[in-house]
Amino acid sequence: MAEKALPESVYKLFARTGHDVRGPAGVVSGALDELERALDGETTARNAAFFTMARRGVRRLLRLADRYTVASELARQMDAPAQLLDVEALVRQAVAEASFVYGRRQVTVALDLAPLRGFAHPSSMAAALADALMLALRAARSRVVVALAAHGEMARVVLTSDSDTASVEELFEAALSPGADPLDEGALPVRVIDGVLRAHGGAARVERVGAETRITLEWPLSEAARKAGGAR
Amino acid sequence: MAEKALPESVYKLFARTGHDVRGPAGVVSGALDELERALDGETTARNAAFFTMARRGVRRLLRLADRYTVASELARQMDAPAQLLDVEALVRQAVAEASFVYGRRQVTVALDLAPLRGFAHPSSMAAALADALMLALRAARSRVVVALAAHGEMARVVLTSDSDTASVEELFEAALSPGADPLDEGALPVRVIDGVLRAHGGAARVERVGAETRITLEWPLSEAARKAGGAR
Repeated sequence: MAEKALPESVYKLFARTGHDVRGPAGVVSGALDELERALDGETTARNAAFFTMARRGVRRLLRLADRYTVASELARQMDAPAQLLDVEALVRQAVAEASFVYGRRQVTVALDLAPLRGFAHPSSMAAALADALMLALRAARSRVVVALAAHGEMARVVLTSDSDTASVEELFEAALSPGADPLDEGALPVRVIDGVLRAHGGAARVERVGAETRITLEWPLSEAARKAGGAR
Repeated sequence: MAEKALPESVYKLFARTGHDVRGPAGVVSGALDELERALDGETTARNAAFFTMARRGVRRLLRLADRYTVASELARQMDAPAQLLDVEALVRQAVAEASFVYGRRQVTVALDLAPLRGFAHPSSMAAALADALMLALRAARSRVVVALAAHGEMARVVLTSDSDTASVEELFEAALSPGADPLDEGALPVRVIDGVLRAHGGAARVERVGAETRITLEWPLSEAARKAGGAR
């Protein structure tokens, strides 16, 4: 597994940061809920843009907290209990959250999801999916398609951006090359994506195909296959 | 100087975290300003508690970002340019900010500030003062007094809490003992306070006197004395 380069203190700092950010961000989120409830609907509607701006900022902080927390667990992820769950719902929820936080006005996100049940560690897989969509959105010209299907014994999520920019591919290469500094700009999301998929006995990859960029996340649907994968 | 225990990657992570938190927290802060401006005064007044809750959360995040940024600079703090400034205004502003963020309903904060000009690195000294007040507030029963005066060639800030709890003293001892883990709960603020004061050629100390706890921050008022102190 790739998770050896960081000193223990860095994992601990990831954990602390996740915790320190989540607390106050949760307070702000709650205050916005209360405020929206207290104002009448007309007032809220008239100021929808400000509420949205505030909520996006708060949810971006909560996502940051999640990324740090998941990163802090990468070293011991192999032991993380996976549960049998509705993978389609997991992908749908992660895409909705990440679209709200990282969405760009000129880029649409389309879903092409098959019903699928399988094993996954829900919070870490959700974080990996959200970070993958963040990268796909950044690379896209006007459209991202998120597809989910079973391929043999594997769950496969493919995020396709309508652009052949080399940026995502280069980011993966740089972040995952031996000796890469995991604290470089943009490296942590890639590390989270890669680490979470590995911990699931699967893999993440990026490729450019024609005028598109595809991020593929693939992991075994069954617990038995996951354990076999983890022992590779 | 005490700043040797952390690997370079941790300083880098402090810097990145400060940056990553500050951005979205600033967006939320701006959105709250806009929202308050857009609502009429009566609506705002009626919902003051929710606005305050949201702002406290946001300012706590901005303070967290400042703490990380200052912590990231501790290793090279000795080179930080200090400017001649109004120390009284600096203390007043830091106390106002920290009182808002960390204030407790049952604890009053009283000021006893002398007019004073001297050299300081404004953002790092403000962060040290804010963290010191955070600790003083936590320790207090019902009152904190913040005093500023010149003592010989030194600026001296004394934060007095009306409680002889051992907690702050113990926290300082634990956080600054050789081999202490700077990532332990509560250690980072102490490290910031201690590191910033040392970088100013001064020192921070905690003592219990009668039924009170005093946090004292002391540093040379003149640039020449600071440089002499830095070379100790």
